[in-house]
Amino acid sequence: MLHLATPTSERWLRQVDQRLDLVLIDHAHCEKKAASTALNLIFAYVEDQELCRAMTEIVNEELEHFHLVLDLLRRRGIRFRRLTPSAYGRKLNDLVRKQEPARAVDRLLVAGLIEARSCERFQQLADHVDDQELATFYQSLFESEARHHTTYTKLARNYAPPEEVNRRLDELALLEAAIVEQGESEPRMHS
Amino acid sequence: MLHLATPTSERWLRQVDQRLDLVLIDHAHCEKKAASTALNLIFAYVEDQELCRAMTEIVNEELEHFHLVLDLLRRRGIRFRRLTPSAYGRKLNDLVRKQEPARAVDRLLVAGLIEARSCERFQQLADHVDDQELATFYQSLFESEARHHTTYTKLARNYAPPEEVNRRLDELALLEAAIVEQGESEPRMHS
Repeated sequence: MLHLATPTSERWLRQVDQRLDLVLIDHAHCEKKAASTALNLIFAYVEDQELCRAMTEIVNEELEHFHLVLDLLRRRGIRFRRLTPSAYGRKLNDLVRKQEPARAVDRLLVAGLIEARSCERFQQLADHVDDQELATFYQSLFESEARHHTTYTKLARNYAPPEEVNRRLDELALLEAAIVEQGESEPRMHS
Repeated sequence: MLHLATPTSERWLRQVDQRLDLVLIDHAHCEKKAASTALNLIFAYVEDQELCRAMTEIVNEELEHFHLVLDLLRRRGIRFRRLTPSAYGRKLNDLVRKQEPARAVDRLLVAGLIEARSCERFQQLADHVDDQELATFYQSLFESEARHHTTYTKLARNYAPPEEVNRRLDELALLEAAIVEQGESEPRMHS
């Protein structure tokens, strides 16, 4: 359902165990970034009203999640601050083709893959952490991220025939898997 | 209350009478732009949680207005499309000082002045147009734009002492008035 070509490895869960604080702070930044991605898509494809509706919902939901994570940080006495982002998003965005309408397809599929990976990691976290509040929180985010993944993939079909979208999604999923398997040394949501 | 140094002139209402369709289309783009301004402020001042809360509300409201205008256009058979924006926003943003914290003060005050001008023009439009649906619509937007103006001006006081913010607001309001009096030939929300 999530179209991911590889599951998250144990390596990442070890990073989470070492620096859960950093993963939580980065999570807040990721929710904010997801809102911004959706708003940028409204600007880029403003004449597509189906897209504008769907992206508006995503902007609202991601900002709501952003504040939920900020509240969680506050309750835990973790100071929210700027962090160097992981290279994951940049590496994926570098894969986006430059010419329209292929560009639209890729932007939507990349956004959808990021949602899928977040979703998969929330599930992993919910199963992994010993902390009941956190497990419930991740579980509650799982459903909306899965829905966002479906929304993005569906919208991509407005810009190319379904079989072409599916082929490109398979391609991008393999590239995303390679990026994730490479990993990063700083503990982040997508390290 | 709105801190504007000059009222909108008759010249603008004549432009509205000539090309209401363009003013409506531009209005939709302005709501979208206002959402983006608020989201950019979250990115710029992410450690200011009061600002993040207030900007999230504004993002949600502006996107809601964006869709209300799109619905209105659809009901009237006006095709929503890209338009060259007026130079108003760019000219105002050029006035923003480069160094923090003055930059934060100016970004917030400029955003607040744009809300104030929109608010004043909605009132003018509500009084001016013969169209009851439109008059009611503009009236309904008036209150939230006024509130946004107050929010922005209040947040600026987190970045400079109140008397300094007030002095800068007076200065920027005079410059805004000069930009508005200059006018623009293409009928737009802020022409």
